[in-house]
Amino acid sequence: MSAKMSKSTVAIIAAVSAGTGAAVTAAIMNSSSSKPSTTVARPPSVAQQPQASPPASIAPIVAVPVAVPSGGAAPPTITPAGATGPINPSGVFEYGFPGPIADVSNRPSLVSSYDRRLRNPHWVVEHITPESLALRNGDRKHSSFLEDPIVPQKFRGLLSDYYRSGFDRGHQVPAADCKWSQQAMDDTFYLTNMCPQVGEGFNRDYWAHLEDFCRRLAGAKYPSVRIVTGPLYLPRQDPQDKKWYVKYEMIGTPPSIAVPTHFYKVIFAEDGKKGGSVAVGAFVLPNARIPNETPLESFEVPIEAVERASGLEFATKLSSSRRKRLCADTSCSIMVREYADRQKAFRKK
Amino acid sequence: MSAKMSKSTVAIIAAVSAGTGAAVTAAIMNSSSSKPSTTVARPPSVAQQPQASPPASIAPIVAVPVAVPSGGAAPPTITPAGATGPINPSGVFEYGFPGPIADVSNRPSLVSSYDRRLRNPHWVVEHITPESLALRNGDRKHSSFLEDPIVPQKFRGLLSDYYRSGFDRGHQVPAADCKWSQQAMDDTFYLTNMCPQVGEGFNRDYWAHLEDFCRRLAGAKYPSVRIVTGPLYLPRQDPQDKKWYVKYEMIGTPPSIAVPTHFYKVIFAEDGKKGGSVAVGAFVLPNARIPNETPLESFEVPIEAVERASGLEFATKLSSSRRKRLCADTSCSIMVREYADRQKAFRKK
Repeated sequence: MSAKMSKSTVAIIAAVSAGTGAAVTAAIMNSSSSKPSTTVARPPSVAQQPQASPPASIAPIVAVPVAVPSGGAAPPTITPAGATGPINPSGVFEYGFPGPIADVSNRPSLVSSYDRRLRNPHWVVEHITPESLALRNGDRKHSSFLEDPIVPQKFRGLLSDYYRSGFDRGHQVPAADCKWSQQAMDDTFYLTNMCPQVGEGFNRDYWAHLEDFCRRLAGAKYPSVRIVTGPLYLPRQDPQDKKWYVKYEMIGTPPSIAVPTHFYKVIFAEDGKKGGSVAVGAFVLPNARIPNETPLESFEVPIEAVERASGLEFATKLSSSRRKRLCADTSCSIMVREYADRQKAFRKK
Repeated sequence: MSAKMSKSTVAIIAAVSAGTGAAVTAAIMNSSSSKPSTTVARPPSVAQQPQASPPASIAPIVAVPVAVPSGGAAPPTITPAGATGPINPSGVFEYGFPGPIADVSNRPSLVSSYDRRLRNPHWVVEHITPESLALRNGDRKHSSFLEDPIVPQKFRGLLSDYYRSGFDRGHQVPAADCKWSQQAMDDTFYLTNMCPQVGEGFNRDYWAHLEDFCRRLAGAKYPSVRIVTGPLYLPRQDPQDKKWYVKYEMIGTPPSIAVPTHFYKVIFAEDGKKGGSVAVGAFVLPNARIPNETPLESFEVPIEAVERASGLEFATKLSSSRRKRLCADTSCSIMVREYADRQKAFRKK
C-alpha cells in the first residue's frame, strides 16, 4: 500500500475516482505538501509479539441497550467551582441534554452504535471463530427485517424508508456469520445493522465476497476474527471547480436514511494467544458495482484513513508491537467461485 | 407557521428552494401521506405557567472537558450474565472503544459538543442576560482564532483548513454576546465554536442580524435567554431525478471541515421565574446570502424539525405546559438599521 502510494503523486491520485484504497486514502489523508508521496500515513510498522488475549468470557445482553457513555444521555456534572462570570450556559440542560446519543445495542451476535442523524449505524462489531461458523442452527429464511425499538421513533430507520428505494437493506454484520443460533441470526436483521447498499455488483457480489474472505480467515489461519463494519460519506473532487464535495442520497419519505458513499471493514485477525499478535487490515469499498476482477488489496487503506473519515478510533489500545499487517500475514483476495458454490449449497438447505 | 403550512401542499413546498423554514420543514418532516397539511408537526401548544427556574449558580470549568457521557469514551460495562453463544463481539473493545466521542468543552461563556467526523460542533450553548450584556470588559480586537486542544489532533479543525477557503470562520456563540470578560470573549474564538459560513450576505449580515435579535430579546422582554446554535446538512430535491441529495463542500487540505448547508438556533427566552414559562423558538437558515428584507419568521420551524435533522433533542424535559411559542409571545423580526448603528458604535470603541 505505502509502496504503491509512494510511486504516485497526489495529482494523479486525486484525478482518479475515489473507488480504490489508494484514491480514498489520498482524498482523506494527503496534505497539501509539495512532497505528497511522503505525507501519506503508512500502516503501522509490522512488529510481532508472541501472545494475544483470548476471547473474553461471553457476556452479551439480549436486546438491551447497555449503560455505555454513548453520546450524552445526561447533562454534564458541573461542580460549582470557579464561577467566573455572570451567566450559566449549561443551565439549558435543565430542558434536556441535546446529545448526540449513539444508541448502542448489545446483542449476542453483534454490538452496534447508531447515528441518529443519518439513521445508519456508526459501526457494528462481530466475532467469528471456526467453532461459531461450524454451528448451523439458524437459517435466514426464518428471519425478517426489523425496525429496532432501541432507537426512539423520531430517529428510527423504517422498513418503509427502504421500500422501493432501489437499494438493498445491506447487513453490516452478515447473517451468514451468525448461523450458530436462530436468535443470533435474527438479531442481524435489525435495521440498526443495515445500510442502504447497491444490490447488484456490490451487496450481492463483491461485498459478499469480502464477507466470505473474512469467514475464510476464521476458518483457516486465525482462531478468532473480530470485525468492525460501517458506512462512510467521503468527498470527491469536482473536476470543474476542483473543490471537494460530499454528496449522498437520502431515502425515505421524508428523506431520512443516508446512502453511504463507501463502507469500511476493520479486521482484527487474532492468533488466539493472550497478548499475542493481531493481524489488522482496513478496507474501504465504494457503495457501487465493483468488478469481481478488482484485487481486494486495492481497497486496503491505513487504519488511520478510516479513523479520519469516520471520526472513530479502532485500535488506540493495541500496541504497535502486537500488530501485523493482515495482507502481509496472509493473502488478501476474494474467491468468487468458491463463494458462488457455497451460496448454491446454502440455498439448497 | 402551522397555519402557513396547512395552506400549502407538499408538492408546492418541495419545489421551493430549501431556503425558508416552511420548505426546510417540508423536506425534513412531511410524510408521503395524501394529507400533507396534517402531517406537519406543529409547535407545542401554548400554555403558560407562572414560574421559571432562575439561572442556576454559575459553575463553569475553564477549558477543561467535563466528565460527560459524550459519545463512548470507554467500552460498555458488560456483566457476565446470560451467555448465549460461542462468541464475544465486544471483545474487540479491548483494542479501544470506537466512539463516537463528542468532545465537550465547558467554558464560562459557552458549552460546545464537537463532531469529529465533520469537524464542526454538533451544538454550542450560551446564556445571555441584560446584566451580562451590560458588562463591556472584552474587546474582540484582543482575541484571536484558536485551534482547540481539547480535540485530538487527528480530528481537530485547523486554521489552515479555513485559510483561503472562501468561507468565514463563523462564530456559533457570537463574540459580541461575551463582552463581560476578555477571557469569555477569547473562549468564543476556539474553532470548536466555528463553522464555515458564507461571509457577505450571511455571517456578516443576516446571521448577524439574527444574533442581534437574540440580544434584543435579552435586553428587553426576557431577563434570561439561552440559545443552542449549530450546523445542519440538509437534503435538496434534484429537479431532474426527483431524488433527495445532501451535498456539501469539504474545506482544507486534505478536505477536512464540512461546510454546513444550514444553521439552526433554538432559543429559550425565560421569564426568570422558577418553573415559569419559556418562550421557545427554532430557526433554520441556509448558509447563503439572504436579503435583509426576508422576514425572520419565514425561517421559523417546529423544534422537532431541527431534532429530526440534527439527531439531537433540545427540550425533552421542558413540559408543554411551560412552553410558549416565541414568535407569538414577541415580535420575531430583525432590525437592520439598528444593528448597523450598533456595529458602527462598536467599531469606534
